[in-house]
Amino acid sequence: MIEQKNIESPSFFIGLDDKDIISFGSGQPDLSPPKEVYNILPTYSAFRYGRIEGDKELRIALAAQYPKAAAENFVITNGASEALDLCFRVLAGMKGKKKILLPSPYYYSYPFIVKFAGLESLYTKLKAGRIDINDFSAKIKKCAAVLINSPSNPTGRIEAIGTLKEIERITKQLGIYVISDEVYKDLIYERENYLIKGPRVITVNSFSKTFAMCGLRVGYLYSLDADFIRRVIEMKTHVSMNTNILAQAMALEATRVPRSYVDSQIAVWRERRDFIYDGLKSIGLDLWKPEGAFYVFPKVKNASKAVSDLFYKQKVIVYDGAWFGSPGRIRLSYALDKEKIREGIKRINSYLTRQ
Amino acid sequence: MIEQKNIESPSFFIGLDDKDIISFGSGQPDLSPPKEVYNILPTYSAFRYGRIEGDKELRIALAAQYPKAAAENFVITNGASEALDLCFRVLAGMKGKKKILLPSPYYYSYPFIVKFAGLESLYTKLKAGRIDINDFSAKIKKCAAVLINSPSNPTGRIEAIGTLKEIERITKQLGIYVISDEVYKDLIYERENYLIKGPRVITVNSFSKTFAMCGLRVGYLYSLDADFIRRVIEMKTHVSMNTNILAQAMALEATRVPRSYVDSQIAVWRERRDFIYDGLKSIGLDLWKPEGAFYVFPKVKNASKAVSDLFYKQKVIVYDGAWFGSPGRIRLSYALDKEKIREGIKRINSYLTRQ
Repeated sequence: MIEQKNIESPSFFIGLDDKDIISFGSGQPDLSPPKEVYNILPTYSAFRYGRIEGDKELRIALAAQYPKAAAENFVITNGASEALDLCFRVLAGMKGKKKILLPSPYYYSYPFIVKFAGLESLYTKLKAGRIDINDFSAKIKKCAAVLINSPSNPTGRIEAIGTLKEIERITKQLGIYVISDEVYKDLIYERENYLIKGPRVITVNSFSKTFAMCGLRVGYLYSLDADFIRRVIEMKTHVSMNTNILAQAMALEATRVPRSYVDSQIAVWRERRDFIYDGLKSIGLDLWKPEGAFYVFPKVKNASKAVSDLFYKQKVIVYDGAWFGSPGRIRLSYALDKEKIREGIKRINSYLTRQ
Repeated sequence: MIEQKNIESPSFFIGLDDKDIISFGSGQPDLSPPKEVYNILPTYSAFRYGRIEGDKELRIALAAQYPKAAAENFVITNGASEALDLCFRVLAGMKGKKKILLPSPYYYSYPFIVKFAGLESLYTKLKAGRIDINDFSAKIKKCAAVLINSPSNPTGRIEAIGTLKEIERITKQLGIYVISDEVYKDLIYERENYLIKGPRVITVNSFSKTFAMCGLRVGYLYSLDADFIRRVIEMKTHVSMNTNILAQAMALEATRVPRSYVDSQIAVWRERRDFIYDGLKSIGLDLWKPEGAFYVFPKVKNASKAVSDLFYKQKVIVYDGAWFGSPGRIRLSYALDKEKIREGIKRINSYLTRQ
């Protein structure tokens, strides 16, 4: 009998190496990046410092994907994580309010990034996984910025376009910054992504999810706010300098990959989405059908105990909803093949029916 | 006639592309990295998230280079810059004093990193480029930590081993953290590097200078303080996640390169050191003979004006000592070949003799 440790965060599961484990844990695509990103490697020989804001060719390629955009509207970062971190640290350095509005449930790092920047999180509770514009409107006035994450990790929900336009209107009127984390923008099953726009909007994105390049850590931020971009570059100059030049060169290749690559990925994700949704429904779980990203977020009784039991008794990794601000749920990433999903659901069912 | 802009920071010079310019600016080795680091590229295919603290094999290889060290004493970071940034942010999150002691002149990013972390810099003025232990002793008591940088950027000086041992003794007695930035440890002309040791010492290092891998952004920190390491990893989990996995794989290859690579690099640097030192002496400048790193830091009248004039009138890039806390000096990196150094000195002489 293994002694069950208390499982307090996702990092508990990092580096486990047991092929009998079924992991619905990390938000890590298992599909490979496009082969084109490796084609440059055999002849690569650069080594010098790059520009702090990122490779110009890469920023030009990104500018072609965004409205009114030029290379100078972008900063390439060590993944979306650093982009978010720089945003909040820059906000912390400005005069004004120190509160940040976070929809809850949230990606589990958000409150930490806000806290580490010296800011304070204020939460607007999602209703059925979506922003309640009344609660939003009441709380946003106390805040320097709001973080929007649609499609959402952990809920898999997308916000209605009407809600996003209302958020644009309110924040523009009040002069409040919007940090829009759109890292799952290319993984939507219901509609095209709606890019949140505005003079104080900072869009955060990444090559990690769309192109499965998580470990290579290339993200970026995009904004029409030249002063904000300047502050980000100034900070990055001192705290991390340029983003890895080789990973940027690989990301540039990714921008040239035909759209069919992304479409074929979405087809796989959609099939898995349907499979895990139907499977979890069939064993009696209450959950939303994901509209984007690759997570389901079902309700489970005694969720923290279930996370621990599932790991120790069934060798299944799921994440505790409490880590995402939502006790009583568990998060499952469906970034694994159908056979594993099937086996995982079987084990979860086996555990739940014994409770 | 070109209009002369005020030159306010090193970033003014970034991205200039004019082959007639002689740049003594950036601290960027022009010599290539060892060819071994590129040998892994043709067959590389990994893409998943890595461990936050860094690749285990790389940390094991580093542990072999440090006393009493094991893999868990290391965190691999986005260059030494992120290592320093994480150190100060972790210190800022601890209870206690909020002042950091910085020897002055200093590497120009230090005061920014301290400020961005929400801490305050206190300065101990170097005497002839070395720590004055009396001033150090008086000021260290007000501080949570001290940053030591030997060999020093910008002075090219190394501290006496006796001084370093005295710093070890004082800080250990007072329970004060020492952040020792030893990125130039392998580029010393006078003696072996002296590793600062102690229970609260955090050593910061990098593959950038020793192996000319600046743009690839692999640095690390090493400490026997397990609690400090844990805090760094927790923060990095949220603010940047793993360091680029491919760059870490390249760094691992660098750890396997024979010592003769480093020796041959030092031979080149020593020759250039002698050449630029003699050259600048011969045109009448007052400077220290560098003992490590690849910078000279001569006195110049009206240094800020000289930086601007040299750029606009002579197409020579030098950095203003004021950026390093030392007005009245200029910093020259000698990371360029002898012919360029010769031409640069000629132009500097031509400018100075007209003043």
